[in-house]
Amino acid sequence: MLPMTQNVSRLRVVIVGAGFAGLNAAKGLAHAPVQVTVLDRKNHHTFQPLLYQVALAVLSPAEIASPIRNVLRGANNTEVLLGEVTGFDLQRRLVRTDKLEFPYDYLVVAAGATHAYFGHPEWEQYAPGLKTLEDATEIRGRVLLAFEQAEREAFTSRVTPSLNFVVIGAGPTGVELAGAISDISRHYLQHDFRSINPTQARIILLEGGPRVLPVYPEDLSASAEKQLREMGVEVRTNALVTGVEPGLVTVGRGAETQRIPASVILWGAGVSASPLGKMLGVPTDRAGRVVVEPDLTIPGHPEIFVIGDLAAARFSENKLVPGVAPAAIQMGKFVARQIRRSVAGQPREDFHYWDKGTLATIGRSRAVADFGRFHISGYFAWLSWLFIHLFFLIGFRNRVMVMLEWAWAYVTYNHSARLITEPKEHDREAAQSKMKAG
Amino acid sequence: MLPMTQNVSRLRVVIVGAGFAGLNAAKGLAHAPVQVTVLDRKNHHTFQPLLYQVALAVLSPAEIASPIRNVLRGANNTEVLLGEVTGFDLQRRLVRTDKLEFPYDYLVVAAGATHAYFGHPEWEQYAPGLKTLEDATEIRGRVLLAFEQAEREAFTSRVTPSLNFVVIGAGPTGVELAGAISDISRHYLQHDFRSINPTQARIILLEGGPRVLPVYPEDLSASAEKQLREMGVEVRTNALVTGVEPGLVTVGRGAETQRIPASVILWGAGVSASPLGKMLGVPTDRAGRVVVEPDLTIPGHPEIFVIGDLAAARFSENKLVPGVAPAAIQMGKFVARQIRRSVAGQPREDFHYWDKGTLATIGRSRAVADFGRFHISGYFAWLSWLFIHLFFLIGFRNRVMVMLEWAWAYVTYNHSARLITEPKEHDREAAQSKMKAG
Repeated sequence: MLPMTQNVSRLRVVIVGAGFAGLNAAKGLAHAPVQVTVLDRKNHHTFQPLLYQVALAVLSPAEIASPIRNVLRGANNTEVLLGEVTGFDLQRRLVRTDKLEFPYDYLVVAAGATHAYFGHPEWEQYAPGLKTLEDATEIRGRVLLAFEQAEREAFTSRVTPSLNFVVIGAGPTGVELAGAISDISRHYLQHDFRSINPTQARIILLEGGPRVLPVYPEDLSASAEKQLREMGVEVRTNALVTGVEPGLVTVGRGAETQRIPASVILWGAGVSASPLGKMLGVPTDRAGRVVVEPDLTIPGHPEIFVIGDLAAARFSENKLVPGVAPAAIQMGKFVARQIRRSVAGQPREDFHYWDKGTLATIGRSRAVADFGRFHISGYFAWLSWLFIHLFFLIGFRNRVMVMLEWAWAYVTYNHSARLITEPKEHDREAAQSKMKAG
Repeated sequence: MLPMTQNVSRLRVVIVGAGFAGLNAAKGLAHAPVQVTVLDRKNHHTFQPLLYQVALAVLSPAEIASPIRNVLRGANNTEVLLGEVTGFDLQRRLVRTDKLEFPYDYLVVAAGATHAYFGHPEWEQYAPGLKTLEDATEIRGRVLLAFEQAEREAFTSRVTPSLNFVVIGAGPTGVELAGAISDISRHYLQHDFRSINPTQARIILLEGGPRVLPVYPEDLSASAEKQLREMGVEVRTNALVTGVEPGLVTVGRGAETQRIPASVILWGAGVSASPLGKMLGVPTDRAGRVVVEPDLTIPGHPEIFVIGDLAAARFSENKLVPGVAPAAIQMGKFVARQIRRSVAGQPREDFHYWDKGTLATIGRSRAVADFGRFHISGYFAWLSWLFIHLFFLIGFRNRVMVMLEWAWAYVTYNHSARLITEPKEHDREAAQSKMKAG
């Protein structure tokens, strides 16, 4: 039983989320005989691997984000709409947003993941994570303001205040953030201040487990930790955070408790899948990811695919496909292919993840790379990281611009994206109360 | 009687505001035997003439703004501090900010101007003006969201909703905004939507006076209006706005009243000087500008200079120096020179404004230019505008980047700065209430 559609000759595909997975599914369907609707909360696709560069003022938002409409401009069968999905009706085959309902014949859910605060959602306001452009400008503002406040304090009181940056979690994001703060305080800001010495800022990276980059091989973890220490980052492993409040991070419990003063606290720890996963009413794993079939559909619904960070897909006996961009891209392309096959009356295939290796950047000229049998560290790992990420950055223009920005910043140690911008809170609140009153 | 200073051998100069006037005063004192403190509410200098390009998604904030620290990095005698000035003590020679006091021997007040809502401050929330980067991203968000909402409505209801952009005030800012909306709806967004036709958006420019660009010669006003009409902008002169509310602009009174529905309302009208002018306790003009002596000081205080948009300086019998960037730059340089002369025991000079002509841009390849005896319009006026503004843009890197962005956008009709980003209101409010409670 097909839902009512205006154009019954074409099957409807609804894609929820325009991250790497959703966008690649849409691209793969651009010339297929289906009608595609892409729903996203934002009007832009964000190149998440470079988000930390926006957070630390190397790049500007527009250099790592593209309007979704722009990316899918060539796909005449595709409608992009701004909206937040609030639920699904699997029986009637409908996607619900706050106001509207969208019927589908095939549904692709690629809603991604967000930060997990280990049952402490109240920590988020004091320790922002890094998932969106807004997060990135928020972090940028906090980091730069901390230097400004220290300068003002030092100028007037003639006493140098302590300047501690605490990064919680030493996964790839935490390591990137800690390394980037080291870069800007040691190199880029060096000559900007008169009363403080930015190179004396402390950067403390806290990891609950025994080593940094826990999902990497042990030798690369060790190398990453060594590189971080060389950059002046204080790495503390087995340091379980038990409290986050304004200006203070608590580690450990009981007699072991340590209280670390912090000018800025950043969150690089857990990830939890989008709540949309649970709304599908099928089994999810501990992180909220939807357990999918070999063809990335959910049990009993061959018309519903779950892909990207939201999917718990197995790629060998006991290994899950990792939540990285290349996996999301592969899943998106795979699903587009399966929908094209189904429309053409061909049987489904199984998804196979092709692990091309993983890279984590640490800072200027520093990174680690795991290419299976080859593990590399330092400058060449960083160069690989650089070129792979530039290559995958969406849009030729962005690629060229980002390369120029980097070359400029690398040679001159000069960042011009170092802007602190704030939302007009007062105006917005006034507007809201007016509208409520009116 | 000098105030207490830590370094009595050096006189202290405090500069309030790092716009064109303040920044040029600071630059002119970089190698003078004085100690300079620059106070600004923002950490960045904004190149205001290009702000409308950020508002309409052609450029990114970082391309038209530079961190003040960065610009003044070479000035070892200069301290840049973030802070909002709340008052002056002219007797004790102190500048007050929320928490601190700064003693001065010479004071340069260059606090600029803001929008004037003609006694209706409540209109601001519905009709944002364009003075800061935050204003620009706010306007960008509203304009792009209007297209997104129209697309969603058209997609679901199959009825094309009306899409009206109303710009109030046809001074240079209003004309730029109206022209830029025409550019993006007619050219850049043309192929991005499926259910609406962006080229059918209406753009209505309302001017209370009898002609657009009222401060320009009449022939250029006429040319500007003609160019606007060719771009599809509906120009309505002698249209006095009497009401602004969400989605609606009211023009005229009584039987003549017109009500214009508006998806987005933008403010390009009046300008009023910073309230800091009045705090100096000397005569101000109707717009709140401080009436200054021929050497740009205030009466009875040869140690206090007021410059830039905040100053009402006479440059001929009955003409005021206009509130444009070249005038502010000239004033800043002049004041730095006078302070250097005073320190060296030389007498003051009088300020002479050198009018190099004025340009107003209207849109892609369209502008008007008033070079005294020469009036030019259209493509060559636009080229002049382009090169003059690129030349004065601060920082070589920004100049090159902006030129590349423009060339790219001009040739391809492709804007990648078309991002809608929002402040995290909920988080901020939560954080604030927490902090108040805590």
